[in-house]
Amino acid sequence: MSLLVVGSVAFDTVETHAGRREDVLGGSATFFSTAASFFTPVRLVAVVGEDFPEHHVAELQARGVETAGLQRQPGKTFRWEGRYDDLNEATTLDTQLNVFEHFKPELPTGFEQSDYVFLANIDPVLQGQVLDQIRAPRLVALDTMNFWIEDIIPGKRAALEAVIRRVDLLFVNDKEAELLSGEDNVVKAAQRIRDMGPSTVVIKRGEFGALMFSSDGIFAVPAMPLEQVVDPTGAGDSFAGGFMGFLAASGRVDAEGIRRAAVAGSVTASFAVEDFSLDRLKSLDKGQISKRYTAFRDLVRIPE
Amino acid sequence: MSLLVVGSVAFDTVETHAGRREDVLGGSATFFSTAASFFTPVRLVAVVGEDFPEHHVAELQARGVETAGLQRQPGKTFRWEGRYDDLNEATTLDTQLNVFEHFKPELPTGFEQSDYVFLANIDPVLQGQVLDQIRAPRLVALDTMNFWIEDIIPGKRAALEAVIRRVDLLFVNDKEAELLSGEDNVVKAAQRIRDMGPSTVVIKRGEFGALMFSSDGIFAVPAMPLEQVVDPTGAGDSFAGGFMGFLAASGRVDAEGIRRAAVAGSVTASFAVEDFSLDRLKSLDKGQISKRYTAFRDLVRIPE
Repeated sequence: MSLLVVGSVAFDTVETHAGRREDVLGGSATFFSTAASFFTPVRLVAVVGEDFPEHHVAELQARGVETAGLQRQPGKTFRWEGRYDDLNEATTLDTQLNVFEHFKPELPTGFEQSDYVFLANIDPVLQGQVLDQIRAPRLVALDTMNFWIEDIIPGKRAALEAVIRRVDLLFVNDKEAELLSGEDNVVKAAQRIRDMGPSTVVIKRGEFGALMFSSDGIFAVPAMPLEQVVDPTGAGDSFAGGFMGFLAASGRVDAEGIRRAAVAGSVTASFAVEDFSLDRLKSLDKGQISKRYTAFRDLVRIPE
Repeated sequence: MSLLVVGSVAFDTVETHAGRREDVLGGSATFFSTAASFFTPVRLVAVVGEDFPEHHVAELQARGVETAGLQRQPGKTFRWEGRYDDLNEATTLDTQLNVFEHFKPELPTGFEQSDYVFLANIDPVLQGQVLDQIRAPRLVALDTMNFWIEDIIPGKRAALEAVIRRVDLLFVNDKEAELLSGEDNVVKAAQRIRDMGPSTVVIKRGEFGALMFSSDGIFAVPAMPLEQVVDPTGAGDSFAGGFMGFLAASGRVDAEGIRRAAVAGSVTASFAVEDFSLDRLKSLDKGQISKRYTAFRDLVRIPE
């Protein structure tokens, strides 16, 4: 079934304990659609500037990403620069919104009929406008960040709450969950957020995995322990991409299907962090994902 | 089969977000033996001062804890005072070793024939001396802390390494694993520590659970998500107590048996933190443990 993502495409300059990369491909929609493409075709809605090389677009297309919704605007592509002193948290050194500042997501004909929708972290007003254009989606998921939750630009928090009421699944990290709910206990925070709208809340905890809260109860999905983590950038979007891609491919949104999807998300994210930018995802194949999915079952297996 | 613990019995003054308690029962051996007592009888070796009320001893005995190895020495019982600003880390405000300063563990007749041994966090020289007295144990586990790893008292690090070579199972937290191994990656740290002696290394991660490394591979055991964490003091020792108690009761030290024991440890620890001191463990019964063990299976269950 069809999967749509609206988010950012960016150039990242990243420094981690493993080294530094300048102006490498990044952005939430890029990580998401690349991760999801292992499971299902993806419809991408985003914006790039005149400086964005055509070969990146061709590579996404070659993976089964439909790029009709990728606008090219006068000016430069969104740029982000960050450093990880601790692999669980990035320090932002510079943000240049560039063409992303005036991004108006427009759905090409046909995209409005999408079964699965991922609203990556962008202005909640835009997230709402995208949702207005979608007809009868089966499942809508949303990601956001502190910037909108804390209402730094007055009115954005209210817009976020309005759009959260309309989504089925929310992806947030521990801190975002606390800010959004006013609860520092993760279980209470998730309950409070479920009362705000989403029937499923996934709380991401970096190298410690994620907790998923739904009517099915709580599902603890660890992160695959890795010998080498090179760059955590895009881990959350790769998790969401594997998760939503798996859901869209299986078409099963019941409790069992969502648990399997969460594992697929964790497995996909575990590859994404093994190299800078999208490098590991680009060299990845479906067989490696299947193999690690099997290893993942053993990682959490409790003998009878 | 028999289970022996050597460690501390203390009075704790603790402050958490949930309140403050003064001079409440604590200590590694106290938490361990109370937690283990749900599964098997326990032999306790520790020291208390003249101020230690007899009713605490009677309560331990009533739980099946043999207290012949609990020395009473002139002076005051070990006292610790700490505060948790973050539930994952205690700030020590005061430590009064008192009678614990000159603790010389002596095994009463019969204790030297113990099948399972837990050397709680005490001077590694003493841990080695205890081990010298035990005849042919089936499984020896050890806990330690930064103070010994960092060689604050010269020679203690070497003593620790010597005793670690002789144990089967090591319990450490993330930071201790990093200090001990010189590796900041948790997988590499565990490999390095396994090369130092213990065939099984359990890396405790507070509210994120634990990772167990053995010849069986990696086992990720989450912590049960709780709506209310009152006091994390003793969580690690309760985890070890549930773990070792379960092992001793089942007598199975193969890979499967150790996985089940790790779950029993996590379940037991999840109760310990629900109230101050040993209060929750004292009101706990085996049925509640079984019920949460079942819930734990569902927490990590990946559908086929």
